[in-house]
Amino acid sequence: MELPSKSMERAVQELSRLPGIGRRSALRLILHLLRQGNDRMENLATSIQDLSSNSQFCENCHSISDVALCSICNDPKRDGKSICVVEDIRDVLALENTHAFRGKYHVLGGLISPMDGLGPGDLTIDELIEKIKSNGADEVIMALSSTMEGDTTAFYIYRKIGDLSLKLTSIARGLPIGDSLEYADEVTLSRSLQQRVLFESTLSK
Amino acid sequence: MELPSKSMERAVQELSRLPGIGRRSALRLILHLLRQGNDRMENLATSIQDLSSNSQFCENCHSISDVALCSICNDPKRDGKSICVVEDIRDVLALENTHAFRGKYHVLGGLISPMDGLGPGDLTIDELIEKIKSNGADEVIMALSSTMEGDTTAFYIYRKIGDLSLKLTSIARGLPIGDSLEYADEVTLSRSLQQRVLFESTLSK
Repeated sequence: MELPSKSMERAVQELSRLPGIGRRSALRLILHLLRQGNDRMENLATSIQDLSSNSQFCENCHSISDVALCSICNDPKRDGKSICVVEDIRDVLALENTHAFRGKYHVLGGLISPMDGLGPGDLTIDELIEKIKSNGADEVIMALSSTMEGDTTAFYIYRKIGDLSLKLTSIARGLPIGDSLEYADEVTLSRSLQQRVLFESTLSK
Repeated sequence: MELPSKSMERAVQELSRLPGIGRRSALRLILHLLRQGNDRMENLATSIQDLSSNSQFCENCHSISDVALCSICNDPKRDGKSICVVEDIRDVLALENTHAFRGKYHVLGGLISPMDGLGPGDLTIDELIEKIKSNGADEVIMALSSTMEGDTTAFYIYRKIGDLSLKLTSIARGLPIGDSLEYADEVTLSRSLQQRVLFESTLSK
């Protein structure tokens, strides 16, 4: 399927490099853009250009930001002694949506995954340890996915900072709110039994 | 879900205006682009920018092209007296893939669809009639979708050029190659009965 226009061919190729977008979808998007007119295309091109030139990593939490220190790290009301360790910026957004955390974050930029060629050196684990050692922290909360990669990464960090005098916690694993018990898998159910909490504490929330 | 970076927010907004891409998918794509580095982002932005500044409609067939006359219309080996009328450039690509047509195309730029506010004036029907009248044509083949919009558009064109001395044809409707008869719908089946062809003609292909 050769396209009659070279600039169209190039745009389709660039778009189809994005995950989940094949050649057909890319062509559909490009035709949509062409129908929408030049303004829409210019806007999209400029926004990606701006993203490329403006975005940087927050120097404290390594999240993506337009400025040296992101809005969360720059917020004086937030407790910098409580650090929530997450995989990427999407997890920050998800946790921020809950309004349940008033500390600061540390974005690892991925999880240890030998299969994908990602080792501890590719993540911001050294920066996390450096930050804890120099600034001090009361609590480090691991908010990582409950996968092999998440557990490996959490364990690696635990081995590195486990002997420092701080509270090292992990978000609770258990039966999701609204789920029925009969459909829960054994591992989740056994974990939620082991880590049962005082009934009183569920009432106060 | 407010993003910490303004340039990211803008890029997500622009991307999520594309059909089939919601805010979540847009964010996923943007994070992928950020991981891929600035070069990939610049390439994508430039390709869309180029598309916007370079693409134009072929002055003969109204397909999208980098130059005034697209490669198909510019091909002296193709028969300009045989015109295949299609909805958009994707149909041109699909028909070109068959290698079964050696004439030229006419891209309508859509189908008559009152529900979407598209009337005959929004399409290149006048240009088609003008082209036929001034250049002459031996055959006009309607290769439009078998939908209400496709049938309406074909009928509209038929009413406009039906009294000119040329062969006006439509691509065959019938049982798709490889399909079993028991699963075909009644309309397709009754049409394929009405428009049955000499068995001999199927052998020669």
